[in-house]
Amino acid sequence: MQLPSAHHHICNDNITPDAQDVLYHLGLSYSQDNCCEIASIFGDVKFFVCGGSAERMKTFAHKLAETLDIKAPFGYSLAPIGSTSRYVIYKVGPVLIANHGMGMPSTSILLHEVTKLLEHAGAQDAIYIRMGTSGGVGVAGGTVVISSAGLNHELEAIHRIPILGKVHERVAVLDAAIALEIAATCEALELPHTIGKTLSCDDFYEEQGRLDGAICEYTNEDKMAFLQKAYDAGTRNIEMEARMFAAFCHKLSIPAAVVCVTLLNRLEGDQITQPHEVLESYDLRPMAVLLAYIKAKTTAQEEDEAPVAEDA
Amino acid sequence: MQLPSAHHHICNDNITPDAQDVLYHLGLSYSQDNCCEIASIFGDVKFFVCGGSAERMKTFAHKLAETLDIKAPFGYSLAPIGSTSRYVIYKVGPVLIANHGMGMPSTSILLHEVTKLLEHAGAQDAIYIRMGTSGGVGVAGGTVVISSAGLNHELEAIHRIPILGKVHERVAVLDAAIALEIAATCEALELPHTIGKTLSCDDFYEEQGRLDGAICEYTNEDKMAFLQKAYDAGTRNIEMEARMFAAFCHKLSIPAAVVCVTLLNRLEGDQITQPHEVLESYDLRPMAVLLAYIKAKTTAQEEDEAPVAEDA
Repeated sequence: MQLPSAHHHICNDNITPDAQDVLYHLGLSYSQDNCCEIASIFGDVKFFVCGGSAERMKTFAHKLAETLDIKAPFGYSLAPIGSTSRYVIYKVGPVLIANHGMGMPSTSILLHEVTKLLEHAGAQDAIYIRMGTSGGVGVAGGTVVISSAGLNHELEAIHRIPILGKVHERVAVLDAAIALEIAATCEALELPHTIGKTLSCDDFYEEQGRLDGAICEYTNEDKMAFLQKAYDAGTRNIEMEARMFAAFCHKLSIPAAVVCVTLLNRLEGDQITQPHEVLESYDLRPMAVLLAYIKAKTTAQEEDEAPVAEDA
Repeated sequence: MQLPSAHHHICNDNITPDAQDVLYHLGLSYSQDNCCEIASIFGDVKFFVCGGSAERMKTFAHKLAETLDIKAPFGYSLAPIGSTSRYVIYKVGPVLIANHGMGMPSTSILLHEVTKLLEHAGAQDAIYIRMGTSGGVGVAGGTVVISSAGLNHELEAIHRIPILGKVHERVAVLDAAIALEIAATCEALELPHTIGKTLSCDDFYEEQGRLDGAICEYTNEDKMAFLQKAYDAGTRNIEMEARMFAAFCHKLSIPAAVVCVTLLNRLEGDQITQPHEVLESYDLRPMAVLLAYIKAKTTAQEEDEAPVAEDA
């Protein structure tokens, strides 16, 4: 029997084991009445994997069950947990899977509530991984970018969050050791990849300098100058979540990684015009990497935990 | 035959009728090959109604079909348009309906793409309305708040957006005349309501001063002082979309409104602990208001457009 860990990954004295906690957007709640159930369902979670679209995460859940050889009981199939009104959540073996929607605010709600859930459940040292799609900066479409940090519009690895009207700054870096492990997995799978910084924006069009939004008041030259500046600062892709994800996990000492494929090279254009099959094959790359990574990690963990044979 | 309108609600010279336009997150695209189809499907749109959750918008679509007495062809039922991977979109008579997910970034993508779609279709002067749920500030749970403006964390009606690394400011006010019309509809339905300012945050927990997030480094007194200050500045509710929605529509001269019910009074607590049935009945209030409002407006429009009887 494992003793409760001294590592707590929340930072709020108001959250105590004896108080009820409604995880509103998950459609779950914790109380003294169901604390054992919460612990038995979620206590073994070692990975929390999230990504934008609900469909992608459903696909990932099914592929993961196959990869980890976790069979559904006869006559049953994998089904989402809690309410599906805001997020769609699956649990496959030691992996909790959810879609975070688009953007940092939506991702933030999920992170707060899942982190409280895992804390209530007594889960130990789960690794958080976001996977997704992104626009490449100076890398070809189809490249897997493993983020070293999330950047703001000034190209600093700092996430600013106004709390009660005052702006706070949080460091938005990700776990370097995990990034290297995931890069090695890409290498083994022979997938084009790089470790680089990720610019995170609150908008897909204007903030990312796209020329094809409903509003565009700059020229192609302005855009190219900004993208080149971003590239020079180490940016290799642009998306809408990494900075907040990194800052949240860093603040709470949660080991974390962001793994996104690029759908195009923004230095060459804006519109995503590749055939659907090509985009779909790109989409599958972060999945393939994480399936292999999690498979290897869980196998290693099982070997560590296996009882040593004793002499009779 | 109506002539093309001189009012264009986009601000981008790159978007032209003869160029292809992939509306990536809607799963739709426009080109010279399908421009007539786009016009025939979306050209008559007079209202665009959006809200956070896909389920709520589906419910709204079905209720609206009933209210406007729009019957599905025999053997068919209402089905979403385009891809449902990011947003779920319905078209019911002259009303386009979509969920925008949670937060301003997700809402922003939807607004850019829907606005381009309506422009391509030649739709004339559609009114945009966001409906949703919110935390009340000094108003009881169940109150319908019709927003006059969206506020930032400094309690100003200004939306800041970094474009190519430089912060731009946009005015975030909503249409006063439409707000009054919607208030009159609430009045007629005998629903508790008020017109007030709406504080829009990029986070549900820390930015909104909740005490129950995974991170909370302030006291109840700090929180109450901020909420009181917000109340004194005219804030009547807090949510996560109104400011960006207002700024986008104001910039493009799109008539717009935000109608949210409050689930609780934040001056009295943080956790949403009301029974499910009560929350559900609150949820239905903005819907009821918009159903009545759209019904009245479309009836008035039909009367305006009806041919005048001529003497034989």
